[in-house]
Amino acid sequence: MDHPSKTVSESRTVMTDLVFPPDTNHLHTIFGGKVMAHVDKIACIAAMRHCRRAVVTVSSDSFDFLAPIKTGEAINLEAYVTWVHKTSMEVFVKVESENLLTAERRLTARAYLTFIALDDEGKPTTVPQVIPQTDEEKSQYEHAEERYHIRKKRRAEKVH
Amino acid sequence: MDHPSKTVSESRTVMTDLVFPPDTNHLHTIFGGKVMAHVDKIACIAAMRHCRRAVVTVSSDSFDFLAPIKTGEAINLEAYVTWVHKTSMEVFVKVESENLLTAERRLTARAYLTFIALDDEGKPTTVPQVIPQTDEEKSQYEHAEERYHIRKKRRAEKVH
Amino acid sequence: MDHPSKTVSESRTVMTDLVFPPDTNHLHTIFGGKVMAHVDKIACIAAMRHCRRAVVTVSSDSFDFLAPIKTGEAINLEAYVTWVHKTSMEVFVKVESENLLTAERRLTARAYLTFIALDDEGKPTTVPQVIPQTDEEKSQYEHAEERYHIRKKRRAEKVH
Amino acid sequence: MDHPSKTVSESRTVMTDLVFPPDTNHLHTIFGGKVMAHVDKIACIAAMRHCRRAVVTVSSDSFDFLAPIKTGEAINLEAYVTWVHKTSMEVFVKVESENLLTAERRLTARAYLTFIALDDEGKPTTVPQVIPQTDEEKSQYEHAEERYHIRKKRRAEKVH
Amino acid sequence: MDHPSKTVSESRTVMTDLVFPPDTNHLHTIFGGKVMAHVDKIACIAAMRHCRRAVVTVSSDSFDFLAPIKTGEAINLEAYVTWVHKTSMEVFVKVESENLLTAERRLTARAYLTFIALDDEGKPTTVPQVIPQTDEEKSQYEHAEERYHIRKKRRAEKVH
Amino acid sequence: MDHPSKTVSESRTVMTDLVFPPDTNHLHTIFGGKVMAHVDKIACIAAMRHCRRAVVTVSSDSFDFLAPIKTGEAINLEAYVTWVHKTSMEVFVKVESENLLTAERRLTARAYLTFIALDDEGKPTTVPQVIPQTDEEKSQYEHAEERYHIRKKRRAEKVH
Repeated sequence: MDHPSKTVSESRTVMTDLVFPPDTNHLHTIFGGKVMAHVDKIACIAAMRHCRRAVVTVSSDSFDFLAPIKTGEAINLEAYVTWVHKTSMEVFVKVESENLLTAERRLTARAYLTFIALDDEGKPTTVPQVIPQTDEEKSQYEHAEERYHIRKKRRAEKVH
Repeated sequence: MDHPSKTVSESRTVMTDLVFPPDTNHLHTIFGGKVMAHVDKIACIAAMRHCRRAVVTVSSDSFDFLAPIKTGEAINLEAYVTWVHKTSMEVFVKVESENLLTAERRLTARAYLTFIALDDEGKPTTVPQVIPQTDEEKSQYEHAEERYHIRKKRRAEKVH
Repeated sequence: MDHPSKTVSESRTVMTDLVFPPDTNHLHTIFGGKVMAHVDKIACIAAMRHCRRAVVTVSSDSFDFLAPIKTGEAINLEAYVTWVHKTSMEVFVKVESENLLTAERRLTARAYLTFIALDDEGKPTTVPQVIPQTDEEKSQYEHAEERYHIRKKRRAEKVH
Repeated sequence: MDHPSKTVSESRTVMTDLVFPPDTNHLHTIFGGKVMAHVDKIACIAAMRHCRRAVVTVSSDSFDFLAPIKTGEAINLEAYVTWVHKTSMEVFVKVESENLLTAERRLTARAYLTFIALDDEGKPTTVPQVIPQTDEEKSQYEHAEERYHIRKKRRAEKVH
Repeated sequence: MDHPSKTVSESRTVMTDLVFPPDTNHLHTIFGGKVMAHVDKIACIAAMRHCRRAVVTVSSDSFDFLAPIKTGEAINLEAYVTWVHKTSMEVFVKVESENLLTAERRLTARAYLTFIALDDEGKPTTVPQVIPQTDEEKSQYEHAEERYHIRKKRRAEKVH
Repeated sequence: MDHPSKTVSESRTVMTDLVFPPDTNHLHTIFGGKVMAHVDKIACIAAMRHCRRAVVTVSSDSFDFLAPIKTGEAINLEAYVTWVHKTSMEVFVKVESENLLTAERRLTARAYLTFIALDDEGKPTTVPQVIPQTDEEKSQYEHAEERYHIRKKRRAEKVH
């Protein structure tokens, strides 16, 4: 492989947005599906920043909504590539709500998504290695292979 | 519990939609996050049809994209409640693409989501039991408790 | 004509969606125009399923709103091809509201739209015949030619 | 009735908008349903300008698409109240496409919609009379009662 | 230059729209950014009507929000080309709110935007001269060169 | 004034988003108005983070588009409060494009917006002082009063 390795911080992507009525149900909390759409978009940007290629989402691991986000609050998302395997990248996303009047932040969700890099013909292509630096990055890197094998087994069960 | 039980077919919900440019990337395939948003919405309607209450998404199990959907194709979604536990409902969603010119259909994704029913004060409230009837419904019902315990364990690990 | 005939059920298309604030006025009822946009989209899918071609809307017959749909309710649409004439297809659409908390359904509108099938150069092209099967399908089929002549006369009056 | 009568020009409403990819199909022409949504919105504003009340759409007469509008073209809409009957208003809408590079305009559709005025409790309430002034306005006014009776008969047939 | 000059009225463009929840904050007033997006769109149409070319926005002068617009009110915009210089056009836009129940109109904002005309290769291309006719048009025309020099100086300061 | 002062970094807000077809014209570059809408939203969040109050936009200084952003590129925005005066806050926003395949970044626009903080009755209310720390923050702070007086003079000219 001829791509120079990249640090995790090179793919780190941050997005803050306001939650508005079109994204919320009649309880005035954001739809789970809207959070998932935000998560996929920011993870997609992080993956592209790592490999500088077009990418497609191949999976999202389980997704738990730990606290609701209400109309008028901010949604804060942070994403970065934690691990790669040949043509695939694992991206971690953290979602927090922020009450803009009180500054209170709450963890909404944490998720791992997997993307594949595509070359100009739309075929999978290898991506640069990841260099974890902080303790959290190193911990996520170390357990990534285990998560990879769980996904591989899961997918095999689904397709037949 | 005083709710009469309901068959799976009472919550069955179907949606067909067209895939358009705003939902697709520069490869002209739908964003994973858009599919997840559709899945959450149809699962939400199925859950409300089962319990006739307001509901919130509490989790989505892992989500694998088995085949892309392109601009101009139709996306077909089907959702129904497979199992319940006190105040929570497990909803199964199947997503297929349909090439409207050739009639070819392909499995895009299969997913389980979990919703909680809320009473008028926004507090969790018990829901009717599910009566599985077809073989597929019975098979999903039988393995539901196992999936429930996996989720419970997973969530416990995430919050601390 | 070399297309094999198709039953009405082969084009039947169903869509259930939630009604949200962006689609509603300050009385919290859905805009008539939003209902018409939904109706055109589902009718378009039904027409494509019948002819497996690109299609364009050429007309909508009169449209009466028999009951409003409110924020938080579901909108249920069903569409199918009732009759064809050379390159044009008549599509029937039924719209119902569903109060998700009480299960009450109400007829919102019934409409006939007409579509034309286009070949790869964008020119009108003949479509398969329709085989009505149920009593309702047969009744709609029998009166279709009469509706066709009313439309033809109406259109002629509008263009000059 | 204690409302002062109003001229047609007092309700006249004009809207020019650009047609973009999210509103168009894969033939790059605007969806019929999008045009109908635009028509309903501008007619709604014209009706409110006439009666200065909240209004709801009760019907749209038949709608013929005489020419397509393409991505990048402008859509021009003009609406005004042509006739009233107690609590209902008939609104005429004309839709034209404009090719912004060549200045060519083409008639896309002409339609009559009917709205009802609502008082503060959401009950139908009488509206001001219309004073037609131009020849076109007078001609539309004279034939309005006939259109009213056609609609009344049509609606009666649909509800049972 | 071989383009025939055009009057200001040839580029005059009018748009009336309703303000809805998705465009408003939790104070139920329209976002400043939504007003700016409307202003840019109508100014873009006016500029294209003047030069009958593709155009791009190069600047907006300062933008003051003189009064808020609330959910359920109408937003009225009017735009026209006031002055040109080689390949660039200055467009004036006036924004008013209209309370549809009381007919009260209030000035929301007045702004000048600048657009450049592009030829088929995307290169700047000269545009027709403007012929001001009314007193307001003449006054805007006379002061345009002064505004042009302010912008030129401002832009020069920003880029380095 | 009883609010503790805040550093500039406490209001710093970052947003990265993808540019898609619905936001772009037929030249595949983002509309100026869409950029302005993004700028207003992120500046609004920065202002709320400074004062922890509801806010309204009162003005945008001139806005120059220094380079286009194309479909498929990322748009990066950064905003922070530079200076305050009684109830108003000046927010600086920097917009850059990022070609996700080449990593090339280009300055798209730099802008100052002004917001007013509102108390629970919707009346203007005083905000915390700003503590500039970096050289850039100090430079922006020093020239802020001058910009304030230009705006005040400009606004006075517009309203009469």
